[in-house]
Amino acid sequence: MSQKLMQSVLDGLKGTLIRSAVVRMQPQEAAETTARISQMFDHTMAGGKHQRSGLALNTFVALAPKASKTAIENAAKVVATLEMLQSYFLVLDDIMDQSQTRRGQPCWYTLPHVGLQACNDAVILESGIAKVIREAIPQHPQRDAILATMGETKFKTSLGQFLDGASNTIDHCKWDRYAQIVEHKTSHYSFYTPLALGFHLADVDGYKNTIQPLAYQIGYLFQAQDDFLDVYGDEKVTGKKGTDIANGKCTWLACQTVEKLKEANDGRLEAFSANFGKPEPEKTAAAKKILIEAEVDKDFVEFVNNTSADLHDKIDGFGRQEVKPVLHSLVEALMGRKK
Amino acid sequence: MSQKLMQSVLDGLKGTLIRSAVVRMQPQEAAETTARISQMFDHTMAGGKHQRSGLALNTFVALAPKASKTAIENAAKVVATLEMLQSYFLVLDDIMDQSQTRRGQPCWYTLPHVGLQACNDAVILESGIAKVIREAIPQHPQRDAILATMGETKFKTSLGQFLDGASNTIDHCKWDRYAQIVEHKTSHYSFYTPLALGFHLADVDGYKNTIQPLAYQIGYLFQAQDDFLDVYGDEKVTGKKGTDIANGKCTWLACQTVEKLKEANDGRLEAFSANFGKPEPEKTAAAKKILIEAEVDKDFVEFVNNTSADLHDKIDGFGRQEVKPVLHSLVEALMGRKK
Repeated sequence: MSQKLMQSVLDGLKGTLIRSAVVRMQPQEAAETTARISQMFDHTMAGGKHQRSGLALNTFVALAPKASKTAIENAAKVVATLEMLQSYFLVLDDIMDQSQTRRGQPCWYTLPHVGLQACNDAVILESGIAKVIREAIPQHPQRDAILATMGETKFKTSLGQFLDGASNTIDHCKWDRYAQIVEHKTSHYSFYTPLALGFHLADVDGYKNTIQPLAYQIGYLFQAQDDFLDVYGDEKVTGKKGTDIANGKCTWLACQTVEKLKEANDGRLEAFSANFGKPEPEKTAAAKKILIEAEVDKDFVEFVNNTSADLHDKIDGFGRQEVKPVLHSLVEALMGRKK
Repeated sequence: MSQKLMQSVLDGLKGTLIRSAVVRMQPQEAAETTARISQMFDHTMAGGKHQRSGLALNTFVALAPKASKTAIENAAKVVATLEMLQSYFLVLDDIMDQSQTRRGQPCWYTLPHVGLQACNDAVILESGIAKVIREAIPQHPQRDAILATMGETKFKTSLGQFLDGASNTIDHCKWDRYAQIVEHKTSHYSFYTPLALGFHLADVDGYKNTIQPLAYQIGYLFQAQDDFLDVYGDEKVTGKKGTDIANGKCTWLACQTVEKLKEANDGRLEAFSANFGKPEPEKTAAAKKILIEAEVDKDFVEFVNNTSADLHDKIDGFGRQEVKPVLHSLVEALMGRKK
């Protein structure tokens, strides 16, 4: 889906949300509410790459090639609620992390006339998700399944956020914990849900058991790449400074380093432990040096190549022919990520 | 409904939420997640008066006197989600207002191991609402209407929260603005929704157009009383210090004072304006003195008596005989509120 189309769909949803907000208000209060929702919607939604909604719509179109223009427009509205959900999470995440910028502009809550009332704006945005879905596809046979999928996604992602937040020491850097964090925080939300929405919208049932493990493996690859870029990425390209080592996060690189140094059993693990997850910049630098000298980047390249090959094999065996190109391109697009 | 029954229902819902949270976790992460949800659920739900859920269940039982034990238990689970919604709002409200205590204990976000991650806990709680409803009444003919009602309530209440937050000067103290704030912030959520849930649960349709204006008028009376107690209440009984005058809130008393002083046209309105909505304690005291000397408390008593008489009349004319006692007691219980 083109960015332009998604922007026009989002503008439409903003209108839907505002109309339904002001339905029992007088002109003055309606004007204030319109201004706030409009500004909040534009600010928090701007600059998104629309990856999740794009994947969902591509999946739908692949499965329903003869869908009418109206059916595609309504599907676009439904998948666009993934961007609303994303903004809901980001507004709250930025408050929780006390971040200052997001997508190159000040975080919504940092604006002087907003402040912590951003929490309430987030509630308005989230409340709009079910509203939009109910209005876009009132008679769709999978409407309730779609509503349930969106609710489940919110729940699962918030659990991932909790597990991620509860991981800040070297003891948390274990593969099985990592896998759980990634599944809850990233894979379900960013890969399973868009694919599931595409299947629901096309009213194609019976693929959950195949899609889910595939989506989770793609999400695992994606998150591991994120973790890699946090340490090895070019700050000028990624646009952000790595903080995972200083914050003691359970990442692919940290798990691999711990595993490798444990096997080596030569004192480097103790040195890594003493410097990992500490706020002092010199400790972070020392931990990073040990990680880099352990050459986990080479292991990472091997992991990425193996995973990608395995994913393409699995996609070849996927039960719905018409979705294979969407899935192959998805994995292809992840290869060589620089940001 | 007894507080004891509601507590046991809430304990059951906590179990439902936890079980569904840890379904794909390993023992260590499942234990951490269980501990967090359990603690958050207990802390944020403790001390609630269960007014909304009680009203909803009483309405259901009145309309469905022959309901089976199982049907009542399931209805109790559904109405208990109103307490989850309430906690969701309160956790976020306390962050927004930077409050320190709630229901006599520290606000959830002020606990050292929680902090702003409370936002994420709120998301977990809110995500549980639809989950509980779907699990409690999977085959109920009004299940979707109930889910939609809960979503609408969240939306409408957050709009009320916005309008309320956007009201902090004397210019905002106008009756039509007040009516809109109260409808959105209080009446819909605290009176209309519980009644609507009761009717939906009993599968009784066709009363929305009668219930809504009645519920909104009851909510208006309730909120006006809250506003009255903020200024005239006994701090030892209400348990809170009034802040509405200092914060320039659009309340029943402020609207009445402005109206009365405008009519008097003797310079007191200018004096009131100069001192209302200002942080300095001496200004608040001066504004309060003018308000008290204007004897708006007498107008308030008249308003309460007239409204209560009008409500009892309307309830007498209500179309469903069996709900009348519930509604009459509701209005009765509001009379003579001291907190």
